[in-house]
Amino acid sequence: MALISIIEDFHPLIDARLLARAEALRPALQHEERLPLPFNDAPLGKGAELLLDFGEHLVGRMTLTLGTAGSHPDAPATVKLFFAETLRELDEDPAAFDGWLSRSWIQEETVHVDELPGILTLPRRYAFRYLRITVLDTSPKYKLIVRNALCRTETSADRTRMKPLCSGDEKLDRIHAVSLKTLADCMQEVFEDGPKRDRRLWMGDLRLQALTNAVSFRNFDLVKRCLYLFGGSRFPDGRVSANVFAGARPEGDDTFLFDYALLFPAALEEYLEGTNDAEALDDLYPIAMEQIDYGLRQQEDGLVNAAAVKDCFIDWSDTLDRTACAGAVLLYALRYAQRLAERKGDAARLEELRRQSDTLREALLRRFWSEDEQCFVSNGQISAASQVWMVLADAGTPEQARQTMRRALSLRGTPHMTTPYMHHYFVMALLKVGLRTEAEQHLKDYWGGMLDAGADTFWECWEPEKPGSSPYGGLIVNSFCHAWSCTPAYIIEKHLLNQDTK
Amino acid sequence: MALISIIEDFHPLIDARLLARAEALRPALQHEERLPLPFNDAPLGKGAELLLDFGEHLVGRMTLTLGTAGSHPDAPATVKLFFAETLRELDEDPAAFDGWLSRSWIQEETVHVDELPGILTLPRRYAFRYLRITVLDTSPKYKLIVRNALCRTETSADRTRMKPLCSGDEKLDRIHAVSLKTLADCMQEVFEDGPKRDRRLWMGDLRLQALTNAVSFRNFDLVKRCLYLFGGSRFPDGRVSANVFAGARPEGDDTFLFDYALLFPAALEEYLEGTNDAEALDDLYPIAMEQIDYGLRQQEDGLVNAAAVKDCFIDWSDTLDRTACAGAVLLYALRYAQRLAERKGDAARLEELRRQSDTLREALLRRFWSEDEQCFVSNGQISAASQVWMVLADAGTPEQARQTMRRALSLRGTPHMTTPYMHHYFVMALLKVGLRTEAEQHLKDYWGGMLDAGADTFWECWEPEKPGSSPYGGLIVNSFCHAWSCTPAYIIEKHLLNQDTK
Repeated sequence: MALISIIEDFHPLIDARLLARAEALRPALQHEERLPLPFNDAPLGKGAELLLDFGEHLVGRMTLTLGTAGSHPDAPATVKLFFAETLRELDEDPAAFDGWLSRSWIQEETVHVDELPGILTLPRRYAFRYLRITVLDTSPKYKLIVRNALCRTETSADRTRMKPLCSGDEKLDRIHAVSLKTLADCMQEVFEDGPKRDRRLWMGDLRLQALTNAVSFRNFDLVKRCLYLFGGSRFPDGRVSANVFAGARPEGDDTFLFDYALLFPAALEEYLEGTNDAEALDDLYPIAMEQIDYGLRQQEDGLVNAAAVKDCFIDWSDTLDRTACAGAVLLYALRYAQRLAERKGDAARLEELRRQSDTLREALLRRFWSEDEQCFVSNGQISAASQVWMVLADAGTPEQARQTMRRALSLRGTPHMTTPYMHHYFVMALLKVGLRTEAEQHLKDYWGGMLDAGADTFWECWEPEKPGSSPYGGLIVNSFCHAWSCTPAYIIEKHLLNQDTK
Repeated sequence: MALISIIEDFHPLIDARLLARAEALRPALQHEERLPLPFNDAPLGKGAELLLDFGEHLVGRMTLTLGTAGSHPDAPATVKLFFAETLRELDEDPAAFDGWLSRSWIQEETVHVDELPGILTLPRRYAFRYLRITVLDTSPKYKLIVRNALCRTETSADRTRMKPLCSGDEKLDRIHAVSLKTLADCMQEVFEDGPKRDRRLWMGDLRLQALTNAVSFRNFDLVKRCLYLFGGSRFPDGRVSANVFAGARPEGDDTFLFDYALLFPAALEEYLEGTNDAEALDDLYPIAMEQIDYGLRQQEDGLVNAAAVKDCFIDWSDTLDRTACAGAVLLYALRYAQRLAERKGDAARLEELRRQSDTLREALLRRFWSEDEQCFVSNGQISAASQVWMVLADAGTPEQARQTMRRALSLRGTPHMTTPYMHHYFVMALLKVGLRTEAEQHLKDYWGGMLDAGADTFWECWEPEKPGSSPYGGLIVNSFCHAWSCTPAYIIEKHLLNQDTK
């Protein structure tokens, strides 16, 4: 996830105790060493280029062993290093990028090397498979030789748990493997949304990472740490930020997303399902309920008001009408809130939540169900997103749900679903209504499509109809290893293999 | 000094004992901390610039304290840092430089800062007075603030010895001070030619630095170290390289300059004059004599042959005829060689050197003295350089010498003298013939002209008629703190104040 909201003089509500707990859970990083595939180590003069291919997506730090040919070097060498996750990025001109995200995300360095031969150690972390080295200058007296390149990888995932799937379906096995690789490369000191960009902890992404983590690396401490970070620095009125900066001074961003905040209760409930962590329940239950209360307060005439709808992410789309989705996400969250209240033994609250759910469900059906269309219509718009969230929220009857997902499967045209984030929930909705074959096929078509297009890890954005699209005005800043795209392993292990379609 | 010569498969003659001795003399560097003049620390958005002025020329490493304004930084900051010795360099476009030197010498860095607020420590050493910081990008959510900038200076000069001159002549005092500052900033682990470029030990520069060092910092060990470096890695036939790379693996360059090699005996003799160092005499006397022998072997019909003339530097000039100069430099070197032979008690060699000197002197006079012109003419060309070196070599009678220097003073037109290196020897020749007032005036006009043009340290190149000239195709790679320009303090202290015109 990544978008831009700016609040002047934003002072988050800090809970130092929760942040200290999060700090105590900061994971140690694991390291491995990786070399590039064999390359031509011929001397490189001014303007020469060398492309190193490490054969797989990596997250880590780079050391280059540099030599020279010709006379004793009489001037520093100046080299440009461009780290790219995909071959497509290499075709982009960094200087030409003029999108609305910071160009600082472009993984390009210009470095002077004073002492040659020597070792060039780059201090920053990169996410990449390819490294293009351009010699900007040496001197007429010598050329540069790249003798070796070493990447020291970083992850907090225990890779020994990365077991290959042997389903008999090669495509499914490959999707599963790339899904876990994607998650592992995003698992750093927090669950990052993307190790290239923007390296932050986003609530919507975390929820999906945590689900996949539960069927793979099972690093529940990292999930806990992230939930505590969200709890530890919130909006002044208690809302959970859309994302948290997890650096030396953890702080919630001044960006709020209505649907992301409402996924906090879901993520907490799912974490507790895996751990039964009483401390986390005690510490975070009130915060989960604050998100629900905020959501409920945004109701007008039983529906979510326009301002809150505007705060809904759902998918990257300028044309999507999110009114139905916003209400559905609130209803969806109320179900997780009820489970939390049960877990907490908070009977009064549980009773109240049930009543609130019923009222909201009725209002949503009344407002969005179209007898004519036999699906959900949001201000005149029939989108997959509206069907998906209404189905996931249990807004209609099972019959309505099945019908609406069949409709969703046949939808073509605007608004497309553009992100794996949305496609994940689409598949979940298909599974929910028992369209298991269609769910599996969609998973293989959509994530498999990225593989066919050359993915080593799953991408932030993928529109099969528009393979070079970017929500940022230039795919050079797209993330090609992205948290919210890692869920196939979860879907396969939890739902396709186990026949569990809860 | 700096020029380009390339010898394929150059394998220098290494004397490991001499290099080990040089290594043992590697000086400890002294450090001081310097802050910029007060500056505006307003927040800097994308594209904003900040110019820091440190008020004086510095050589050292930089630390920036960076803060932010606005939201929590959600992307790295990308900043371009351009270190410039003079204001003029700031007007140059680094990207437009297309000269024959390496553009790697341009002191420009592009750096990503991932953690903000934070301290940015740059690993390289810079020579500069000005630092221009350009914010290439932050993000729409925040701006960058430069809170502080600190330069930790580096020099092997003992600055406590940098005593101001109080001659009563303000200009002379200022020239003296800037001269010592120039030398101090060039004194690092060797006597560098320029701390910006090319940071190497050049023979011609060393000789002048050593003279100035003797009347100021008196770091004779550093002179010795440099002489041993020249002795320790030479051309396979024993010649002294024009320069030595003094890094982790000291090595003589594959560049040879006839006049520079012949200054080795002079520099050795002058070092011994200050130290009476018997070890250095024993170790380096044979090497000094090798340079003389090489020079003598280049004679044809009693004069220096064309190939050796071509290897003569003398001054940056494409039009200068160096034939007379080459012969004169050889004769000049023979004088120092005789002093070395005396010092060594090598009577046979001394006798031989005297004979060789006399023969050469006669040949030079016969060939280059013009009765018609009453000065020295080199292949039809009357240049200051020819007069200067003939005079310094004692080629003619005192009367001829005085006449020729009067002529040199009045010379206008091509070839100009272009460098302080040449101007130094010009002043020395004026002093030699007793034109003391003219010498002082020239010193004040020429070096004072750089001060008037804004110099904080004396420059590599200075042509009052062409203030923006560069021998490299772009003054952005010119050195503005240059070894061979540091001699006014020597001239003032040794010759103007002491009335000594040896």
